[in-house]
Amino acid sequence: MTLILSNDDVEKLLTMPDCIEALEAAYEELAEGRGVSRQRSDCITPTTWSEDAIYGLKSMDGVIPRLGVGAIRINSDIIRNPLVGNTRRRVKVPAAPNDRYVGLVLLFSTHNGEPLAMFPDGVLQHIRVGATNGLGVKYMARKNAETVGILGSGWQAETQLTAACAVRDIKSIRCFSPSRENREAFSARMSEVLGIPVTPVDQPEDAIRGVDIAMCGSNSTDPIFFKQWIEPGMHLSSIKKPEIEPAAIKSADKVVVHTHDPGPILVVAKGAKFTEESKGEGWNKRHGIDFDKMPTLPDMIVGRYAGRDDDKQVTCFLNNLGLGYQFAAAGSVIYKRAKEQGVGHELPTDWFTETVHP
Amino acid sequence: MTLILSNDDVEKLLTMPDCIEALEAAYEELAEGRGVSRQRSDCITPTTWSEDAIYGLKSMDGVIPRLGVGAIRINSDIIRNPLVGNTRRRVKVPAAPNDRYVGLVLLFSTHNGEPLAMFPDGVLQHIRVGATNGLGVKYMARKNAETVGILGSGWQAETQLTAACAVRDIKSIRCFSPSRENREAFSARMSEVLGIPVTPVDQPEDAIRGVDIAMCGSNSTDPIFFKQWIEPGMHLSSIKKPEIEPAAIKSADKVVVHTHDPGPILVVAKGAKFTEESKGEGWNKRHGIDFDKMPTLPDMIVGRYAGRDDDKQVTCFLNNLGLGYQFAAAGSVIYKRAKEQGVGHELPTDWFTETVHP
Repeated sequence: MTLILSNDDVEKLLTMPDCIEALEAAYEELAEGRGVSRQRSDCITPTTWSEDAIYGLKSMDGVIPRLGVGAIRINSDIIRNPLVGNTRRRVKVPAAPNDRYVGLVLLFSTHNGEPLAMFPDGVLQHIRVGATNGLGVKYMARKNAETVGILGSGWQAETQLTAACAVRDIKSIRCFSPSRENREAFSARMSEVLGIPVTPVDQPEDAIRGVDIAMCGSNSTDPIFFKQWIEPGMHLSSIKKPEIEPAAIKSADKVVVHTHDPGPILVVAKGAKFTEESKGEGWNKRHGIDFDKMPTLPDMIVGRYAGRDDDKQVTCFLNNLGLGYQFAAAGSVIYKRAKEQGVGHELPTDWFTETVHP
Repeated sequence: MTLILSNDDVEKLLTMPDCIEALEAAYEELAEGRGVSRQRSDCITPTTWSEDAIYGLKSMDGVIPRLGVGAIRINSDIIRNPLVGNTRRRVKVPAAPNDRYVGLVLLFSTHNGEPLAMFPDGVLQHIRVGATNGLGVKYMARKNAETVGILGSGWQAETQLTAACAVRDIKSIRCFSPSRENREAFSARMSEVLGIPVTPVDQPEDAIRGVDIAMCGSNSTDPIFFKQWIEPGMHLSSIKKPEIEPAAIKSADKVVVHTHDPGPILVVAKGAKFTEESKGEGWNKRHGIDFDKMPTLPDMIVGRYAGRDDDKQVTCFLNNLGLGYQFAAAGSVIYKRAKEQGVGHELPTDWFTETVHP
């Protein structure tokens, strides 16, 4: 039988420690060349949804024989690019029936090729970002790190904190985000979830001052963490390039990047009003930072690079890009737990396989 | 609702003329840059299935706003490379439960992104190859062509003949394939299917002599059609590069290739016993044939290249490579017909969409 799982199922099935452990094994395979990751591709065209929107069919995949799975993640997006202030923001529209988004993960067996499971990508998308930065903390933060400052109060901030708590014995957290209401609600909720005090503060500096681990978990496309906030022994963590000021990145003793994957292959149709919002190559060049020369998370996991040499060093982990490969790693855990716990809709595997030679 | 269709459904829903018409519209869009086709990617790793096998997760996609669809085709293959004679043959193993292959097409709406349908790729895989060469016949064979010689007696040969009959008023066909039993059974069956005489012959030359259209539809990796068989006004058609002897290709007045797509991006894991069997770049160089300089089928469909100038010319169409884009084109027809006829299993679209922002 092939399992159809929901986001609710994924949320119940995949714990952060499980996801971190699966990713760690997967990165070891990737570093050794035994696992493979395929570069994301984005097909972009106009859509009849609206004049100012585009359609995007995006896919990324990866295969991890050691975990017995291959996965492909597919997004079928309607995207608008409204002008917010001076910046064009990229906004996914929940245009599918019942105001829903379309993101799917298909999981296959490397043993016999069969489709094992299908599930939406949303919850996993969140957890895998946290888990990746959690590995950054595990390999780069001081072993005795026990305080975290977080900038942000959305789902990214939530998974960042959960991941940090999974790899270090965190005793207390301070949180800043621009909206008082948001940071207070988030802090109250996360105090309960994590069982440790999470304190909202009025200024970003107040969240960062004196902490062992400074985490960015925002949706900002501009820097939110600055060089003058750095203290000896601190670990910096970001979920995308622009969050940490380039001067801060340059002044860290150790900087590790998630991956050297070059990012999406774009195939853009004539007439698609496509505005690339990512501060990619242009950003790198402007700030004289060459991500391709930095060691990667997989390098660090297999011991080719030491994430920290002593307790005085400032370390920095940059989660520059997601990989389909991560969905295979986490997917293997989700599938295993779903089978153990009897979760999900079972459909006949014959519906998704064939006797005709393809 | 999202439709789950079977190969049997696809076979009933998709007629050859429908498929040819959809592909024709799709190639026009591709030539004009309004449709987009993403290069295939193959992730190749070892498998626990057997020591001499590999696992392949392959995907290709394309989007055609004019037809309202995007499609991704996914193959999850166990592949052996046994030595047959002096050649390594690439053999897909039906390793999934109940001895089945795994090939899937997912169809999405470019209007709102929703997943419209999922179906196995096998039957469509066959029809689209035929339909593509059918367009070669339509744009390159003489208007008054009425006889076909076919080399081959498998499913490729079947769809080649069906396609030729869909675009020309074919009166008779001669068929050669190495096994007498196969060519006789095939000819008898195709006579009934097509309603015109299909005659088995003992030598390949006998199938080709005097015909207007010479078609190759074999699984041979060596030439099966030779220069000395060419006659004035003949149209030659092949489903893969090696079938027609290079000297024959060079002596044709007009040669058109399906696509300039560079073929799969290979991502190969350490330890995968991967033997590339395709006579790709090596073949081109050895024979001094530069496919990239030839006009393509889309060029011809939009009138940038004339497939034939007069009735004396020898024309040649080479179907060098398949595209995910073709699955989108044919998929749009399959979906439309399935909705009209109420065919397929309906599953809640909510199972494949989400409220969580991906």
